[in-house]
Amino acid sequence: MAGKVFLIGAGPGDPDLITLKAVKALQTAEVILIDDLVNRALLAHAPQARVVEVGKRGGCKSTPQHFINRMMIALATQGQTVVRLKGGDPFLFGRGGEEMQAIQQAGISVEIVPGITSGIAAPASIGIPVTHREFTHGVTFVTGHTQNGEKPDWQALVAGGTTLVIYMGMKYLSAIVTDLLEAGMASDLPAAAIQQGTTDQQRQVVSTLAALPAAVKQEGLESPAIIVLGEVVRLARQEALSELIAVAA
Amino acid sequence: MAGKVFLIGAGPGDPDLITLKAVKALQTAEVILIDDLVNRALLAHAPQARVVEVGKRGGCKSTPQHFINRMMIALATQGQTVVRLKGGDPFLFGRGGEEMQAIQQAGISVEIVPGITSGIAAPASIGIPVTHREFTHGVTFVTGHTQNGEKPDWQALVAGGTTLVIYMGMKYLSAIVTDLLEAGMASDLPAAAIQQGTTDQQRQVVSTLAALPAAVKQEGLESPAIIVLGEVVRLARQEALSELIAVAA
Repeated sequence: MAGKVFLIGAGPGDPDLITLKAVKALQTAEVILIDDLVNRALLAHAPQARVVEVGKRGGCKSTPQHFINRMMIALATQGQTVVRLKGGDPFLFGRGGEEMQAIQQAGISVEIVPGITSGIAAPASIGIPVTHREFTHGVTFVTGHTQNGEKPDWQALVAGGTTLVIYMGMKYLSAIVTDLLEAGMASDLPAAAIQQGTTDQQRQVVSTLAALPAAVKQEGLESPAIIVLGEVVRLARQEALSELIAVAA
Repeated sequence: MAGKVFLIGAGPGDPDLITLKAVKALQTAEVILIDDLVNRALLAHAPQARVVEVGKRGGCKSTPQHFINRMMIALATQGQTVVRLKGGDPFLFGRGGEEMQAIQQAGISVEIVPGITSGIAAPASIGIPVTHREFTHGVTFVTGHTQNGEKPDWQALVAGGTTLVIYMGMKYLSAIVTDLLEAGMASDLPAAAIQQGTTDQQRQVVSTLAALPAAVKQEGLESPAIIVLGEVVRLARQEALSELIAVAA
């Protein structure tokens, strides 16, 4: 009898920001394929399970996607209950869609368990709501880089007037900011970068669009981080804002 | 000694799609202010708490926002631990930002606990990932109506090329679709409407942009529902797609 795969969102980092549904699935897991960015504290929910690390470790490259897919399918075909534990939400920049397709095509049952995405939780942790009636109609989540080097249509995104939340944007932050300024985004638009939001290692800077790359550099912020651009950043808590003053001084 | 307010996201409807952090806060609550759309099963985590209903019931209007704010502040000022339990995520179209500001301005401590938003979980429940590398750079979440009658810049949002997820769009669905067609969105773009996603009462239609209003009407779908527009809707599970065939037949 074939097993099953759960594609589970582990949330943004804080181990308490996982759902009850995910915990219940972890308790039934026979094997867990875990990404590098997932908090290991979550494995306490599944002491019975075998754990396979499939993320980047040290300087090594991450496990290729097709290898992960094949492993999930092989284990489930053997009848095992497989949990694929991914950071954030599996369906928001998590490649969960691709993994789901591969599992379905192999005729294996797959269940998606959503997770709290960093793009909402990291700003919230310093008091920034990604939407607010006074400021915007909505929020757009984009990735800062793509494998083929294509860029989002920054001009359209700026014209859209939504809060902009950028995932995986730290590596090319200066280029992204240059593009956004050229696309007409205000240089003094409030901007924040939040590294490892909701974890004990969280750090952030709150600045303006034009000043963000220098502020990030000065504070030594690195990936993984979430970038938030929009008037809503004005609502950041004073404790977070004080870092801006430190940077500006 | 002043109390505290937790602004908590109850998630999309499935009572297991709440976080451990939210459950722990519920266990400490002395009073809970609960919205109408929140699943009452969640109150089982807080048998000790007094419950105040502040959402729409029957034909009555919802409790005015300023009254909710005043009640939270008054209770916390009396030293109580207050949980404000809101559907989805408090910071994504939840007015959580406004409530946070009011509580902070009163000098009361406030903690935000993110929740799973329906705009991600409802599509996921029928196999739709809001992003997928093959189809789009990102996803935009907008509201279909605003109190002052202003509209999102549909033309810019269409040009942006992200998946479009519309909250509170059912009432003006026909007008929104007309606007989107005028803004250049393809009439045959895959489109879905998902009512009460992740609950036992979930229903959905999968269709195309131009055909969505008729499909929604034929199936009798109503608010609260999430509308998803984008190529990613092609990944909807066959069980969900069969309803499209029923509608088209």
